[in-house]
Amino acid sequence: MKKPITIAIDAMGGDNSPKKIIDGIELHLKNNPDVFYKLFGDQNLIESCLKNKNINKELFEIIHTDERIKNEDSALSAAKRGKNTSMWLTIESVKNKTSDIALSAGNTGALFVIAKLNLKMIENIDKPALSGLWPNKINMNIVLDLGANIECSEKNLKDFSLMGSALHKSLFPDEISKVALLNIGSEELKGNSIIKNTYQDLSKSKNVLYDFKGYIEGNQIMNGDVNVIVTDGFTGNIALKTAEGTANFITTEIKKALTGNIIGKISSSLNIKNINKFKKKLDPRLYNGAILLGLDSPVVKSHGGTDCVDLQML
Amino acid sequence: MKKPITIAIDAMGGDNSPKKIIDGIELHLKNNPDVFYKLFGDQNLIESCLKNKNINKELFEIIHTDERIKNEDSALSAAKRGKNTSMWLTIESVKNKTSDIALSAGNTGALFVIAKLNLKMIENIDKPALSGLWPNKINMNIVLDLGANIECSEKNLKDFSLMGSALHKSLFPDEISKVALLNIGSEELKGNSIIKNTYQDLSKSKNVLYDFKGYIEGNQIMNGDVNVIVTDGFTGNIALKTAEGTANFITTEIKKALTGNIIGKISSSLNIKNINKFKKKLDPRLYNGAILLGLDSPVVKSHGGTDCVDLQML
Repeated sequence: MKKPITIAIDAMGGDNSPKKIIDGIELHLKNNPDVFYKLFGDQNLIESCLKNKNINKELFEIIHTDERIKNEDSALSAAKRGKNTSMWLTIESVKNKTSDIALSAGNTGALFVIAKLNLKMIENIDKPALSGLWPNKINMNIVLDLGANIECSEKNLKDFSLMGSALHKSLFPDEISKVALLNIGSEELKGNSIIKNTYQDLSKSKNVLYDFKGYIEGNQIMNGDVNVIVTDGFTGNIALKTAEGTANFITTEIKKALTGNIIGKISSSLNIKNINKFKKKLDPRLYNGAILLGLDSPVVKSHGGTDCVDLQML
Repeated sequence: MKKPITIAIDAMGGDNSPKKIIDGIELHLKNNPDVFYKLFGDQNLIESCLKNKNINKELFEIIHTDERIKNEDSALSAAKRGKNTSMWLTIESVKNKTSDIALSAGNTGALFVIAKLNLKMIENIDKPALSGLWPNKINMNIVLDLGANIECSEKNLKDFSLMGSALHKSLFPDEISKVALLNIGSEELKGNSIIKNTYQDLSKSKNVLYDFKGYIEGNQIMNGDVNVIVTDGFTGNIALKTAEGTANFITTEIKKALTGNIIGKISSSLNIKNINKFKKKLDPRLYNGAILLGLDSPVVKSHGGTDCVDLQML
């Protein structure tokens, strides 16, 4: 029998937890039978969410703790007082090799600091980066860093190219990984000195993992010409959240426009299947998990505001 | 009789010029009779575009030059060899007070440098900023800087708050201007030191022009809670272009989804009026002109890739 993958989950992280965590597990189990869950958090709350769920009791274990990291905690204060929190215990579980993967929908800054305190870095990598999936016209981009490191050096950006390509290769082994630096122009002269130096270095040295394709601008992220997009955590976070806000704005507006009068209502209800197909393609839960790359164990950050944690990508 | 507004236009800037410039003028004249245009560029090309157009010859003047700034020119080299280019002559025309407003759809960097070389700054303002309109749920945001200044100091960001609010007030005099700094979190602790210092300074000093509302994240740009969004030119450009790319991706995908089968085709054609209403709200040409604020004369940058220059906002 195949040994199941053990997933350590911070059951208290993010909005509306642990309910959404348990909903997520129920969803995940449908397609992934070989998994065991270690749930860290308030036992009573977790058990009350498990009532009326059809989840086999042999597939999970609850490790009780009263403590949790709050969204408003600063990363450092969370790390200092955090040794008995559900997030800390989740990370510790991969550190001790009792779990294979750690997952939290909680405070990103705290998760980053707690993971760095507990886990080792991969050799020659200086900083972990938060990397996520972002759809493009052809398939999917890996984009990193999405917010772990506000300021990045040339070395960091080069590390991200490597780590992003490695993740891309493992998810899409039949594709060629094509790296681009996110910038404000496609010419060599544009951007700050760190981006320009990184461009020079990546242009000079051929890497076996990926092809370097130069710069792309924000409006080219979804073109499908490249599939690994490298940037510092400040810029990546702004880009990701701006795309999210734009998508929400447009889908709300289009819904209003499509059902704006009686003919609209009728034709939209005729069109419901097509609209659902579209929604499915854009559903942020499909691209929800961001992986903290560069550590010796996988740590996944889920969006705090999502309605149920999606584990499909694990 | 009211004195007409004279608009100096770089007829050669951007893709597909001067055709789109002349198309834009034809459109603009329909609602704005009290305007006179000075068109700088290749006389033969401009005249051939004017053929078959119903534009009164007394409403414009062509000032011939063979020279033009190319998209691929660096800002500095463009400025050095640029004294006889259509862009330079356009800016010179507002400098000499023979025009009231300068407009170009050409190379942004070159326009910025040429404008700075020719025009004076407003007193106490250190750097000009490229500011544009960005729709939100209620009305419109002013967002700046959109790409003129890659790195900005606290003083620059504070100047941008003031300039953005002044533009907002002049466009929407009945609204209260609400300034926010674009950041990667809403808590005081997030962001780099320049953003944090600016936050502190803006929180301390009450300004008569605007209310300071703290930080917003990328996904809140279109919420309508604030209406003047301040950021450095690198971040602003990435955010603007990412929003543009996301909007293009979604509208393409939705079009595919809505017409994916025969029922979709029929119901979408029933819905055509509603879809057109939606498209109109999102049409980038409506928000196309970005104003270079901080100079003693108005300089407007139009999107290089737009199909015709829209002058509605002048």
